[in-house]
Amino acid sequence: MVVRKLWVLLLIVSMHGYGTLASDPDPIQDFCIPNPKFGAIGTAHLGILPCKNSSEATTDDFVFSGLKATGNFSDTGLATIPVNPGAFPGINTLGMSFVRADLKVGGINPPHFHPRATEIAYVVQGSIYSGFVDSNNRVFARVIEQGEVMVFPRGLVHFQMNVGEKPATIFASLNSQNPGLQKIPTAIFGSGINEKLLEKAFGLTPKQIGTMRRRFDPKTWR
Amino acid sequence: MVVRKLWVLLLIVSMHGYGTLASDPDPIQDFCIPNPKFGAIGTAHLGILPCKNSSEATTDDFVFSGLKATGNFSDTGLATIPVNPGAFPGINTLGMSFVRADLKVGGINPPHFHPRATEIAYVVQGSIYSGFVDSNNRVFARVIEQGEVMVFPRGLVHFQMNVGEKPATIFASLNSQNPGLQKIPTAIFGSGINEKLLEKAFGLTPKQIGTMRRRFDPKTWR
Amino acid sequence: MVVRKLWVLLLIVSMHGYGTLASDPDPIQDFCIPNPKFGAIGTAHLGILPCKNSSEATTDDFVFSGLKATGNFSDTGLATIPVNPGAFPGINTLGMSFVRADLKVGGINPPHFHPRATEIAYVVQGSIYSGFVDSNNRVFARVIEQGEVMVFPRGLVHFQMNVGEKPATIFASLNSQNPGLQKIPTAIFGSGINEKLLEKAFGLTPKQIGTMRRRFDPKTWR
Amino acid sequence: MVVRKLWVLLLIVSMHGYGTLASDPDPIQDFCIPNPKFGAIGTAHLGILPCKNSSEATTDDFVFSGLKATGNFSDTGLATIPVNPGAFPGINTLGMSFVRADLKVGGINPPHFHPRATEIAYVVQGSIYSGFVDSNNRVFARVIEQGEVMVFPRGLVHFQMNVGEKPATIFASLNSQNPGLQKIPTAIFGSGINEKLLEKAFGLTPKQIGTMRRRFDPKTWR
Amino acid sequence: MVVRKLWVLLLIVSMHGYGTLASDPDPIQDFCIPNPKFGAIGTAHLGILPCKNSSEATTDDFVFSGLKATGNFSDTGLATIPVNPGAFPGINTLGMSFVRADLKVGGINPPHFHPRATEIAYVVQGSIYSGFVDSNNRVFARVIEQGEVMVFPRGLVHFQMNVGEKPATIFASLNSQNPGLQKIPTAIFGSGINEKLLEKAFGLTPKQIGTMRRRFDPKTWR
Amino acid sequence: MVVRKLWVLLLIVSMHGYGTLASDPDPIQDFCIPNPKFGAIGTAHLGILPCKNSSEATTDDFVFSGLKATGNFSDTGLATIPVNPGAFPGINTLGMSFVRADLKVGGINPPHFHPRATEIAYVVQGSIYSGFVDSNNRVFARVIEQGEVMVFPRGLVHFQMNVGEKPATIFASLNSQNPGLQKIPTAIFGSGINEKLLEKAFGLTPKQIGTMRRRFDPKTWR
Repeated sequence: MVVRKLWVLLLIVSMHGYGTLASDPDPIQDFCIPNPKFGAIGTAHLGILPCKNSSEATTDDFVFSGLKATGNFSDTGLATIPVNPGAFPGINTLGMSFVRADLKVGGINPPHFHPRATEIAYVVQGSIYSGFVDSNNRVFARVIEQGEVMVFPRGLVHFQMNVGEKPATIFASLNSQNPGLQKIPTAIFGSGINEKLLEKAFGLTPKQIGTMRRRFDPKTWR
Repeated sequence: MVVRKLWVLLLIVSMHGYGTLASDPDPIQDFCIPNPKFGAIGTAHLGILPCKNSSEATTDDFVFSGLKATGNFSDTGLATIPVNPGAFPGINTLGMSFVRADLKVGGINPPHFHPRATEIAYVVQGSIYSGFVDSNNRVFARVIEQGEVMVFPRGLVHFQMNVGEKPATIFASLNSQNPGLQKIPTAIFGSGINEKLLEKAFGLTPKQIGTMRRRFDPKTWR
Repeated sequence: MVVRKLWVLLLIVSMHGYGTLASDPDPIQDFCIPNPKFGAIGTAHLGILPCKNSSEATTDDFVFSGLKATGNFSDTGLATIPVNPGAFPGINTLGMSFVRADLKVGGINPPHFHPRATEIAYVVQGSIYSGFVDSNNRVFARVIEQGEVMVFPRGLVHFQMNVGEKPATIFASLNSQNPGLQKIPTAIFGSGINEKLLEKAFGLTPKQIGTMRRRFDPKTWR
Repeated sequence: MVVRKLWVLLLIVSMHGYGTLASDPDPIQDFCIPNPKFGAIGTAHLGILPCKNSSEATTDDFVFSGLKATGNFSDTGLATIPVNPGAFPGINTLGMSFVRADLKVGGINPPHFHPRATEIAYVVQGSIYSGFVDSNNRVFARVIEQGEVMVFPRGLVHFQMNVGEKPATIFASLNSQNPGLQKIPTAIFGSGINEKLLEKAFGLTPKQIGTMRRRFDPKTWR
Repeated sequence: MVVRKLWVLLLIVSMHGYGTLASDPDPIQDFCIPNPKFGAIGTAHLGILPCKNSSEATTDDFVFSGLKATGNFSDTGLATIPVNPGAFPGINTLGMSFVRADLKVGGINPPHFHPRATEIAYVVQGSIYSGFVDSNNRVFARVIEQGEVMVFPRGLVHFQMNVGEKPATIFASLNSQNPGLQKIPTAIFGSGINEKLLEKAFGLTPKQIGTMRRRFDPKTWR
Repeated sequence: MVVRKLWVLLLIVSMHGYGTLASDPDPIQDFCIPNPKFGAIGTAHLGILPCKNSSEATTDDFVFSGLKATGNFSDTGLATIPVNPGAFPGINTLGMSFVRADLKVGGINPPHFHPRATEIAYVVQGSIYSGFVDSNNRVFARVIEQGEVMVFPRGLVHFQMNVGEKPATIFASLNSQNPGLQKIPTAIFGSGINEKLLEKAFGLTPKQIGTMRRRFDPKTWR
């Protein structure tokens, strides 16, 4: 009896869940809404979640309303609301995600990159110094204004700074449902890479490296 | 002598042009700016254009400023500015494109689909009845407001109507550099499909089909 | 005890099922036969099903015999037998599917498209007016005869009509295991899209739209 | 002056030709008809050819009529008409190709494989012993009859033999525009692999290897 | 109660397991370490296994130490240690695998191919006659020495023989996490393909085919 | 006359060159050797070059012999010989590349990443502290020895340091023919990103940033 119920559960897992399988390159079904019964949908880091029967999908599964307000600001004056399938079930398996980023006056989005996506950044309001670095260490950067769009090619370091006199807002979309993110200051100085290696890589003294590591230690910072 | 000059041209084609080769799935270089010398960049329908040496790329190649104003309105109250590599060189080979769409009060974006891309539609302003139809002929539609986002899965018919009391604006991005577009009314009734077939498919009289064909004839319409 | 049995079930799910994961672009195993224990194989709409251990695969898993007879005819004189992994386990994860389509004399396959596949249509017998519409609303159509092949590019609207004096049969193959299908008349008029929007899109009166919606209402039609 | 004409030619190459770029995974335009001006279309081995402006495409570009008659029979009683973009311009960049194969009574299609595609084989007429071998050296083979379909997974060795009492015909489609082909007997014994290595690999005497090599020498055979 | 525990198990399956979904083309998460709780990791043939929470990954998951010693030698003087996700969890979903191959003096790696990957072979020590055959039955082969690299294109038959005076070692990497393997002698003569077909394909007598089949019979050989 | 010769050149470009088109995901021909006539093969940054007729390919096109000696050492004690299609024609379009890296005693390979590839690093000799950082800023690092292999997932920052008492050598392969490279110190401090932004991102003084920028200025360094 219990076995039978569980068999049913397994059927649910196998029948519904296996719709989740398509990866970014090409979906093999119309869509795949993650099933809240089978996972904490708020856990955004996975990017892939089991899905429910397509007949149970609702219009609201395909609409995201959580971008209306600004997120919480970091020390550098940046507030982001990243939206992947953990936050917005409807985009699961569809090969896209998006983010709202707000910058206080003078606020910055530190150099970072997305290992798995190109980014299209649309300026909703404000004046933003914005740019990226290519594989030849050339920087492509300038101030962009409301209504302008800048593209950051897949996997290249990019950055932004509000150089205007009022808050700035960006709506950015990316061509992976889980683009990933490496913020350079934290990834390098806050991750626990061997100090000796960092000294040699950046030409810094042990003391300087120590300062940097304390600054970006995830236990104290963020 | 002439031959030598042309040889140089061929070298330019072969050396610069072949950077253009990556298709949507995965780029194999940082970026590839189409070379204006080798093609009318305004010709948007191709999606792929030959590119220039990466050292000649400039920051402006990666910024698009043509979305600030509204496009020209159609009979249905829709104005779109579609942006693919023909209009914005910097996105060539990067697997994304985008569009600004404006709708007059009561204006509509007729049922259509993009054969090669998922679409993320972000409402910049206005109240828009918005939806799509899945492979089981179910419609997923509702009104979305400023700051909300709706996703239209790859290749599925979708549509929009401004149901608010002021003009509406959408910024939409797509995960192909050349997503393609088939507007149902025109593709079906304005393309010259055999009348008998259309009569049977839609259950319309020859006279009704005639009316529809005149309405969507590309020579008279648009 | 019950837990232990279920643990075994879970192992079965995890060990066998995860062979199902490859999507259309590239398989990562020789094949993956869906396991009938874990799902109603007849449920064709998913396209992906859990698979059994490769040592349990049999030759019959790779042979499909269900195309010998004609399917059931629709009102428009069309009978299709679509074959995806739900119907034919052996093609799961292999990036292809196929369909037999029969057309009565004068019968039609209404304008439709497959969001995720190109189609190769081979005329087994008969004379068939056959064509598609491209992104520029140009129609490419003509009569094809027994032994001829026509290609319908991925995601573009296409259609067929038996213009011969005997029944016609087509064998078509597609390069996705679950290509999807949107039939234009039903997707547009039988799905419940807002009437006002349809009136404006097609230039029809409320009464005409009402007629169309009744004709293609899935509850009355098909 | 001559330079100017050639410049025009180069523009043609660059503007039209670069539509050819999409590879099997995902097209980035509706279609791309190879331009006969820029290449011997009969040269089938390349698989990719430059394309013409989409406005110059005609319906006939998308219809292939060359399968109506049987091809030329080989020593083993096999006649194939392989159709890739070299033979059928319309499928260029669309990720599919196909082949008609006829087998005399008792004729065979020797063990072979396609490095880049899965194959769907539909029996138009006849009784054909048909099968493939998986990565664990298991054979999956049986006789299939008119109207039946067998799938050969990508890259696996497969083979066919007409075991009926009349000629047999197969229509097969593959999910690459240029699937490639390695016939085992010829690839192994007719390609010039070091004799010592072949002796050890197959446990044959130098004399036996010599016989095999003469039999499959491309200069004498076929 | 039991149901609740199993529910938890199911959550584990669904939450952790679904990280396994990405196929070779493009990962959608940083990595996915197979979870030993849910499968015999030693079972290498599947290539895909359920994964554990990324926070439980350890450095050792990404280091493979099993290549230091030589594997077991076959009759042809070849010892291979193939490393796919079954043997090395850390590479799961990352699109690569690798192998150490040792050859005794005079030892050979018989003609074989990998259906799903290109191979890069780096000679760690020794002198190795090494080559492949292309789709036109041309052989590309020569002796390569320590420090040299040869590439074998995806899906093409290749082979190696130690022609030096001391043991040889190769480190080869492949661009699929589960490239597959078909050894020609065993796949053809040890798999049970119909004898008549083999006689006709290779021009051998029934007696000769019988000898070959006994030699490569998996029940006696290997 | 001149026109005719150039026409021939164009044919060469179009017929041979278009074999180059396949991108990393899936090749559509056996191989594509870049044609030295049509480009400086030493120009490695493009990754894609026009190719020659397959009948002109030679065995040497598929063998790379340039890894036998150590490259030139940088200031940090690192010498790399990166091998992409610019250096090794035979791998063009095959989806892989490789590199030899030597580290002096105490030498380091600074934190860097490859935007388009996973890396498999095989220790040919030496003791190397080696690791990467994931999207959650966790470091996975330890010392690996001769014969061990470490994997660096696509797009994630990784680094190496020779912690042994003799020189170390690595043979690394990557699953893109042009993986790209961003060295963090140079990309961040040597590329010309706005100073104010860097101050805020790293919490450094203008003077400290100035020192860093001079250290990694491409005009003075390397």
